[in-house]
Amino acid sequence: MVEKVNLADKFALFQDHWHPRIAGEVNDMHVKLTKLKGEFLWHTHDAEDEMFLVVRGELLIRLRDQEITVREGEFIVIPHGVEHQPVAREEVEVVLFEPKDTLNTGNVENERTVSDLEWI
Amino acid sequence: MVEKVNLADKFALFQDHWHPRIAGEVNDMHVKLTKLKGEFLWHTHDAEDEMFLVVRGELLIRLRDQEITVREGEFIVIPHGVEHQPVAREEVEVVLFEPKDTLNTGNVENERTVSDLEWI
Repeated sequence: MVEKVNLADKFALFQDHWHPRIAGEVNDMHVKLTKLKGEFLWHTHDAEDEMFLVVRGELLIRLRDQEITVREGEFIVIPHGVEHQPVAREEVEVVLFEPKDTLNTGNVENERTVSDLEWI
Repeated sequence: MVEKVNLADKFALFQDHWHPRIAGEVNDMHVKLTKLKGEFLWHTHDAEDEMFLVVRGELLIRLRDQEITVREGEFIVIPHGVEHQPVAREEVEVVLFEPKDTLNTGNVENERTVSDLEWI
């Protein structure tokens, strides 16, 4: 049985920030849903590119030499090895597309690290 | 230089149907944009899962034992090996996520096969 995923329905199921849920898998990649609000930490993914598709709100991506505002209906891919800091002044809903073993905090492990992500 | 992609801007750049363009890459995957209208052929991808995210319109996915209507803000992943036929009664705009070597017609090669996809 193949099932579709309605993004709005899934986003309605959780309220916390910076805690991605898995909503799909495509070969070795996961499709994750996350709500962001506030500043995240600077981090890098050594091997994993990371795609952020904004479905609601406005996401600021800070790089060391650049700042990019990603709005609803826009996406950005942060190549592996590029240090970045996601910032959400107001709540943002984001679809992430990244390799299954991607850790949300990349090369940093601290209290904001979420391992063993659950499916939603 | 990291650049964001605005989906509406990119979709405005082409009008033809069933001819995906590459809009991004995430490790071994491509993000492709395509407009669909009418019935496509039944086909299977032997090794590649294929994700369809509908950003405008309504996409019918026929499987041999199921039909699923995927609407704006919804996605579906067709697992590799599952025969499917995409059908768009009216024009649909779709974001595809799939391995880079995915052929649009899967195990079938005919006049609808598009190889050497260009970036947009």
